Amino acid sequence: MLEGLVQHDFPLNLQHVLARMRSQFGDSEVVTLTADGTTRARYAEVCGRIDRLAGALTSLGVEQGDRVATFGWNSQRHLELYYAIPCMGAVLHTLNIRLFADQLTYIANHAKDKLVFVDDVLVPVLEKVAPTFETVEKFVVMGGGDCGELPNVIRYEELIADQPANFDWPELEDNQAAGLAYTSGTTGNPKGVLYSHRSQLLHAFGTCLADAMGLTAADRVLPVVPMFHVNAWGIPYAAGLIGSDLIMPMQFLQAEPLAKLIEEEKVTVAAGVPTVWLDLLNYVDEHKPDLSSIRTVVGGGSAVPLSLMQAFQERHGIRITQAWGMTEMSPLGTVARPPAGLSEDEQWRYRDTAGRIMPLVEARLVTGDGSEAPWDGETTGELEVRGPWIASDYYEDPSARDKFHDGWLRTGDIASIDSRGFVKISDRAKDVIKSGGEWISSVELEVELMAHPDVAEAAVIARPDERWQERPLACVVRKAGSSVSADDLIEHLRPRVAKWWLPDEISFIDEVPKTSVGKFDKKVLRKRLQEGNLESETVSQPA
Amino acid sequence: MLEGLVQHDFPLNLQHVLARMRSQFGDSEVVTLTADGTTRARYAEVCGRIDRLAGALTSLGVEQGDRVATFGWNSQRHLELYYAIPCMGAVLHTLNIRLFADQLTYIANHAKDKLVFVDDVLVPVLEKVAPTFETVEKFVVMGGGDCGELPNVIRYEELIADQPANFDWPELEDNQAAGLAYTSGTTGNPKGVLYSHRSQLLHAFGTCLADAMGLTAADRVLPVVPMFHVNAWGIPYAAGLIGSDLIMPMQFLQAEPLAKLIEEEKVTVAAGVPTVWLDLLNYVDEHKPDLSSIRTVVGGGSAVPLSLMQAFQERHGIRITQAWGMTEMSPLGTVARPPAGLSEDEQWRYRDTAGRIMPLVEARLVTGDGSEAPWDGETTGELEVRGPWIASDYYEDPSARDKFHDGWLRTGDIASIDSRGFVKISDRAKDVIKSGGEWISSVELEVELMAHPDVAEAAVIARPDERWQERPLACVVRKAGSSVSADDLIEHLRPRVAKWWLPDEISFIDEVPKTSVGKFDKKVLRKRLQEGNLESETVSQPA
Repeated sequence: MLEGLVQHDFPLNLQHVLARMRSQFGDSEVVTLTADGTTRARYAEVCGRIDRLAGALTSLGVEQGDRVATFGWNSQRHLELYYAIPCMGAVLHTLNIRLFADQLTYIANHAKDKLVFVDDVLVPVLEKVAPTFETVEKFVVMGGGDCGELPNVIRYEELIADQPANFDWPELEDNQAAGLAYTSGTTGNPKGVLYSHRSQLLHAFGTCLADAMGLTAADRVLPVVPMFHVNAWGIPYAAGLIGSDLIMPMQFLQAEPLAKLIEEEKVTVAAGVPTVWLDLLNYVDEHKPDLSSIRTVVGGGSAVPLSLMQAFQERHGIRITQAWGMTEMSPLGTVARPPAGLSEDEQWRYRDTAGRIMPLVEARLVTGDGSEAPWDGETTGELEVRGPWIASDYYEDPSARDKFHDGWLRTGDIASIDSRGFVKISDRAKDVIKSGGEWISSVELEVELMAHPDVAEAAVIARPDERWQERPLACVVRKAGSSVSADDLIEHLRPRVAKWWLPDEISFIDEVPKTSVGKFDKKVLRKRLQEGNLESETVSQPA
Repeated sequence: MLEGLVQHDFPLNLQHVLARMRSQFGDSEVVTLTADGTTRARYAEVCGRIDRLAGALTSLGVEQGDRVATFGWNSQRHLELYYAIPCMGAVLHTLNIRLFADQLTYIANHAKDKLVFVDDVLVPVLEKVAPTFETVEKFVVMGGGDCGELPNVIRYEELIADQPANFDWPELEDNQAAGLAYTSGTTGNPKGVLYSHRSQLLHAFGTCLADAMGLTAADRVLPVVPMFHVNAWGIPYAAGLIGSDLIMPMQFLQAEPLAKLIEEEKVTVAAGVPTVWLDLLNYVDEHKPDLSSIRTVVGGGSAVPLSLMQAFQERHGIRITQAWGMTEMSPLGTVARPPAGLSEDEQWRYRDTAGRIMPLVEARLVTGDGSEAPWDGETTGELEVRGPWIASDYYEDPSARDKFHDGWLRTGDIASIDSRGFVKISDRAKDVIKSGGEWISSVELEVELMAHPDVAEAAVIARPDERWQERPLACVVRKAGSSVSADDLIEHLRPRVAKWWLPDEISFIDEVPKTSVGKFDKKVLRKRLQEGNLESETVSQPA
């Protein structure tokens, strides 16, 4: 074999990103929202603090491969941890602050975290569960607030205060572990995804593609998506790599502070889950802040309703671009930028998908019989993906190996892919309703139901059925003041879905239960149905 | 060491790009300009022809690692060769059609090319030198034109006609050689740069960064830069990776056909050397074609004059973005996108540099005493670079090893870097004028001279001087009809450069000699000076 004479041993690790922040993006800015206003620091200053933080970690006995956990909102200090921990060879483990106590206990002990860095405002959440963390030697509190009942506490600023200005960064391997995040699976124990330096770097690189998030040095990026949720979709590393400013919202994720932050800080790119943008839309409709600095809003985490995207664009000129991914995928896998030369209507059709498969990501659809489905935009199968930033195993959890085969990750999503590589996710594999040998997409029914003006939320689950095996049961939250009936909703659905998809029963509920990351928790609804605690109305002969 | 559990063995090779062209960009288009109009093919069809071409190459005995040369303009067939050759494991060797015969002989024999693919319109250029190619077994003519005196000729279309529709692509290694290009150095023999699959893929990825060329699936890209010149700056692979349409100009690189091509094909991104844009500017000024589809023009190969960029932007709303690189760098190293929040004037200051250092590229400045120069925007040193797409050696040429040390490539450029990572190249190391222990930049003098309305071209070389060691001699081409004097030019320069930089002598010449790739060939001027064939006027006491 003839080998190319290019530098194959060039280190692909996060120290490269840190070096760029230091050498050419010293002027870029990190702004953190606080209760009193904002704090600001240039990357030059942040890098100095990262050096001192790495010194402090070393002084606390952190060694290469050790897991160091964070329990915090999006902030400058969290960013410092994002760099200091992996760049010294340790592993950044972002604990999800919204998990239940027993999940946190399981995760911290499974990861064998050595230290936990916690925002002072989150001390009340952590202090109850902290005593169950068996391997944690110290809790480091960020901010000057109360340390509560936390054991072995030190304060972040005191920790780094006396450290030397320069840290002697070690040489790292590309495939060395850099980060660890647990999936908040709805079944079984949470599973750890262990990212490498190379995967984090390549993912950040991919994020900056013009056809992905397209981050540039001129951008001011607001990650509303939390840094404890799949690395804030890679934005902290992408911003460092390309030099974007970062606008960190801390715990102030409500529409009003976000709108003010965007307006005052002239945010150009924002990223977060649809519920955030839904709340923001309502606020913006009423208060009309000046959000004209925004170039792109990236929506993901769950499907962004078409109506939401259209409302933002038509009423406020703000473009929401949908993206899709998973914790196991770092997370970015697809971005919904429509092809060129299409009418507005056709563009919406593409923008209303999970998006187009990114470079360095491969995808395929596997049907029930194990064969590959064609990319015809119709045939569905379980979506499988692989690539240099996609997990090939879980961290110390052999029980979950069946999520991977032949190097492919089984996403658990039922999807179709069209001839242009746009992925349309019809359902989670476990949420799909198997009716008479065919599949009914619960998600599509939900989307159509939520398009009704009187519907606030809708979750569709399978109801056991003797004849059809399963039939859809729609759990609907009416908007305040509405008295829309089950029959009204069926009439609304009738022209929109196949006849045999129409639910036989509708249950009006007060609220759809949510998981810790704000997704519909259908497990709870299924349990209520099973226990007979989900009253429903049978509708007039639907089929 | 704890290793990340992501797919580190995901193949980073050009087959991934080919797979994307086939699976999701089948609709993207390749347009090739011909004498009679254009030919068009969708990527789907192109991929089918790539399969058949790979089969044909195999039938001709091409094996992994074999060098297969091309001698052609930018066209669909050349694109097919760009993919078929490396994706079957052979090495695409792009011969520079503008080289002198003895250089071509040296290169083809040094590379041990097995086949040469040649455009029919280039047969007259190749046929004279073809008999000196010792290892070439067959010449494959692209197009239906005359095959001249070429030995062992077959025709491209006949070659692929009977091949099977599907090729069984082999597994490749990431570091396997994919491409070979020789630098047209002005001293010594040409030197080969051997690219790997991984380097070509990562470079294509980098090209699509929003802060680099920013190619997207919605773009229609016109590479005016030839495919025989450093891989057309990576555009053929970047377009395949991200799905851009390609508009191929063949030999029609004059302003009129280019302007028509841009207008008719609605080109959005074009890339080429400054002389192309200078000619186009003159044409556009006069004929006012509609070039409003253009989003970005990328200029590189040599410094793009500020006046040219400003004229295009002010008179025609077309933005030229400067980039810099070398054959040894795949070639992209810097792109001049200005930082945010600057006035128009300040932006021009940044846009008038080689650009900002790209992700995955590292740079440093090494001064005469071997120390590193600070990034202060003033101190100069020889620019050195390294990265995963930057050469670490030349192909089978141990004599040139001194161009590399400790993994760094010595670019031979004298440059400064500012605190934001913008590189300003002041001169080629060998062109800098060493006067009284200080350096005078020949390039800066040329730029200032060419800013004079009566100057068409200017090249500044060193004239031996007893007292100062070297002094600048300006060789100036007057614009037609102008009779600007040496003293006029000195007065023009006086407020623009340091006093001791002012040339003592000016030589009015008819034309600046050019190298095969259109760069000023100062070697020729130096030789004329040495032989006493360069008449010059001494100017009134300059200093």
